Amino acid sequence: MHRTFAKPPSKEKAQVAFGAAMRALREARQFTQEGLAERAELHTTYISSVERGERNVSLNNITRIAYALEVLPSELMRCVDPVR
Amino acid sequence: MHRTFAKPPSKEKAQVAFGAAMRALREARQFTQEGLAERAELHTTYISSVERGERNVSLNNITRIAYALEVLPSELMRCVDPVR
Repeated sequence: MHRTFAKPPSKEKAQVAFGAAMRALREARQFTQEGLAERAELHTTYISSVERGERNVSLNNITRIAYALEVLPSELMRCVDPVR
Repeated sequence: MHRTFAKPPSKEKAQVAFGAAMRALREARQFTQEGLAERAELHTTYISSVERGERNVSLNNITRIAYALEVLPSELMRCVDPVR
């Protein structure tokens, strides 16, 4: 558990990694952006913007998106873990 | 991976769970709020407010806090996973 990390990823990298992971999971589930938006009770334009890495998504929205994608929030967040 | 969840936790519950997990890890590391704030390059008042469950922390700040606490972002986020 107790490791030493160099540095967190840059803001942009974290957002882009999150957006890409979300899109991959959405496509794996065969959900459209509209379908995911409805499941997560968020706007389609917001979902689209997150997938493009433009948003600094909040804890509550990460949680809603994870539930809508039927993954654990911690699983969805693996995309910002350092590569091991 | 593909599970069905009832509902995501309420906003308040997710924020409170995150704050409590962060505080527990900070205390385990024997960091003060000031020390953690410095490591994460965030304000002490912000850290304190997150620990009280008052903030809807962003992806970038979750990542910074995780690195400062020397845990993976995905590990820190386990606190909002449903109880199994």
